[in-house]
Amino acid sequence: MRAGILTVGTELLVGHVVNTNATYLTAALNELGFDVYFHLVVGDNRMRIREALSFLEERAELIVLTGGLGPTDDDLTRDAVAEHLGLGLKEDEVWLAKIEARKGSRGQTPLPREGRQALLLEGATPFPNEVGLALGMAVRARGRTYVLLPGPPGELVPMFERHVAPYLREAFPGGRPLVSRYLRFLGLEEGALFARIEDLVRKQGDPTIAPYTEEGEVILRLATRAATPEEAQEKLAPLERAVLERLGPYYYGEGKETTVARVLLDELVSRGATLVTAESCTGGELASRFVSEAGASKVYLGGFIPYATDRKAAWLGLSPRKLAEEGAVSAWSAVELARAARRLGGSTYGLSTTCAAGPAPADGKPVGTAYVGLSAPEGDRAYALRLCGSRGHIRVRLAKLALFFLLKAVRGEDGDPELLSNSLRQG
Amino acid sequence: MRAGILTVGTELLVGHVVNTNATYLTAALNELGFDVYFHLVVGDNRMRIREALSFLEERAELIVLTGGLGPTDDDLTRDAVAEHLGLGLKEDEVWLAKIEARKGSRGQTPLPREGRQALLLEGATPFPNEVGLALGMAVRARGRTYVLLPGPPGELVPMFERHVAPYLREAFPGGRPLVSRYLRFLGLEEGALFARIEDLVRKQGDPTIAPYTEEGEVILRLATRAATPEEAQEKLAPLERAVLERLGPYYYGEGKETTVARVLLDELVSRGATLVTAESCTGGELASRFVSEAGASKVYLGGFIPYATDRKAAWLGLSPRKLAEEGAVSAWSAVELARAARRLGGSTYGLSTTCAAGPAPADGKPVGTAYVGLSAPEGDRAYALRLCGSRGHIRVRLAKLALFFLLKAVRGEDGDPELLSNSLRQG
Repeated sequence: MRAGILTVGTELLVGHVVNTNATYLTAALNELGFDVYFHLVVGDNRMRIREALSFLEERAELIVLTGGLGPTDDDLTRDAVAEHLGLGLKEDEVWLAKIEARKGSRGQTPLPREGRQALLLEGATPFPNEVGLALGMAVRARGRTYVLLPGPPGELVPMFERHVAPYLREAFPGGRPLVSRYLRFLGLEEGALFARIEDLVRKQGDPTIAPYTEEGEVILRLATRAATPEEAQEKLAPLERAVLERLGPYYYGEGKETTVARVLLDELVSRGATLVTAESCTGGELASRFVSEAGASKVYLGGFIPYATDRKAAWLGLSPRKLAEEGAVSAWSAVELARAARRLGGSTYGLSTTCAAGPAPADGKPVGTAYVGLSAPEGDRAYALRLCGSRGHIRVRLAKLALFFLLKAVRGEDGDPELLSNSLRQG
Repeated sequence: MRAGILTVGTELLVGHVVNTNATYLTAALNELGFDVYFHLVVGDNRMRIREALSFLEERAELIVLTGGLGPTDDDLTRDAVAEHLGLGLKEDEVWLAKIEARKGSRGQTPLPREGRQALLLEGATPFPNEVGLALGMAVRARGRTYVLLPGPPGELVPMFERHVAPYLREAFPGGRPLVSRYLRFLGLEEGALFARIEDLVRKQGDPTIAPYTEEGEVILRLATRAATPEEAQEKLAPLERAVLERLGPYYYGEGKETTVARVLLDELVSRGATLVTAESCTGGELASRFVSEAGASKVYLGGFIPYATDRKAAWLGLSPRKLAEEGAVSAWSAVELARAARRLGGSTYGLSTTCAAGPAPADGKPVGTAYVGLSAPEGDRAYALRLCGSRGHIRVRLAKLALFFLLKAVRGEDGDPELLSNSLRQG
């Protein structure tokens, strides 16, 4: 089952909008059993929409279009498809009433052009829009299925999940869904990590294994097609075991959307533990990643950002003499910050960061020199790291690594000698 | 001058990589005077690369391909183009020596397959890669120009800027570059902002005006084609004036890449002022946005994240009795936090946030209730806001709005009654 995606919108061709819809739809169609071989993007232009349709029709049984269903003169997708397939358009009365009701509830009357959003292709199945006013639809013609969806991701995603996916499951019953597992790793530079699994990647068949990176972490996507989730699991398990045998110390969790902050938060909640942070160069990035997870208040009491060196002394009580001797970017400073955070905060754990994030060296240390400090009931510790990249990269990576090291410590997995030695040369 | 973009890479067709290269290239080609009418994405498949080339060749004089130039068996772009155009491939000796030298400097010998990255199409102009090992190139054939670029954005962007743009300027001298100005706004809900300029958008000709949004801010892109920057400026100026007459109080700066944190940092540096923050619900997001700008240490002394209510009392001295009466999410709390930050930090300004970010109400306040507190030499103030969206949206928007309100206060522009009244119903 082959699918093609056609994204319509001039905003994509002037260079300030990224085509996230195509990415979302590709993954969603894969999960329904489709192979997606082509993406096309065209502007709001009737002729070019038709040219793209002609190209895709020869190469796919399912063509999914997004964008160009709004009320303005630039919204041409419906008309272009109607013309291309020789189908009429008529208003869906139920949806027209809905548009009027929605506008009415805000004390407005729909403008005449807003009624265009209720136009349906002859013979099409309508898909209600639970967020916006444009009706989605699917129509079968020329032995193909054409699905028309609104462009705003906030409208497209719920419409796909609630209406389009069930429709396609019924219309294309033979599909063997692609089932994926996303194994997530931190604490090992990506080149070194890839090298350890290169043979698995090179000799892959079914299941497939694809490594990619996301803000300094490495994600391995294991995927296979199977009729049932159980069958998929059975096929994926041996490969997953092989990967974890080689990379276990760096593994932190599974899931397409999960984060190290989420995994750590759940771990701390389950143990009834609390956390206070003290950040220098990450300047709130670490705390913010933790707090961005719902339920953070069960664990996170608060934090300090003693950014200027003298505030490390004034706020957290670090010795000015030792600060001058050891430097603000030092293992000593990291440990003292974590210890002070824990003491002042009255928490189970204290976690700190200090680094030279660039662009210029800080405290006489070259850009990329970084330390994580950890204070725990079992004792205190610093991790020395060497990070590469821009100021932004260094700050984000260090924040994530700090969360990772705390997770490993909480789980009692931080004794792994390899993890400790590798932690000294983080990429 | 028409250009088409072909992105090659199976990773784009399995739904976990977003096609940012196409977005970057489109904007860069627009600036060189090209119209980009089509984007195509195909996997690492020789036949489909050729099908896509055939489609684009009929519709563009310039075809830019990215991806598939690496050393592995999956990297097929060079071979597919060679086959398609009937051109030979041979090693570029200079580049091959460079690959050997680079590997040698790390104590490694290049693997045989790494030499593939020095292969050049017959008659092509090579583009050195200053980051990675794959050579880029341009070749003219069939009355078209084909440009092949590496897939990693970190390699593609510098190669384009240093080598491809100058090449295209010379090869296509007739272009009238697209010149854009990006006007950035905060502090007014996007629907209300669009409504004020709807007529300008609807009756636009040359220059064009396109509104878009980015993490709660609105950006208006004014663009025109012109032979010289001066001519462009002359054409853009009247439209810019018309926009700013209507939206002046919400304007904070101009630029494609600028941020409210950057503008505020520059403003505070120029005044020799310093800042300390106290964040509750934003939990470091505000500080991190500020610290992410190079040079933040000139202004930013540090901050507090008194996340749990009792830490607001313990760390920042807020009265426990008043906290119980007024609530942690209140104008009173925001002002007291900002005041305490300024006092404890010894800074010119203190800036604070407190809100119910969700998913559940906080402190008896519905999700979206938010306050910014500001303490300045001229006095203290709170801004009451009502924010929509997810927990993540609310936190990011509040952090940006806090920076915006401080910027307006520092510039003495916060007296605008409209700004103040609108600030009470932020979207």
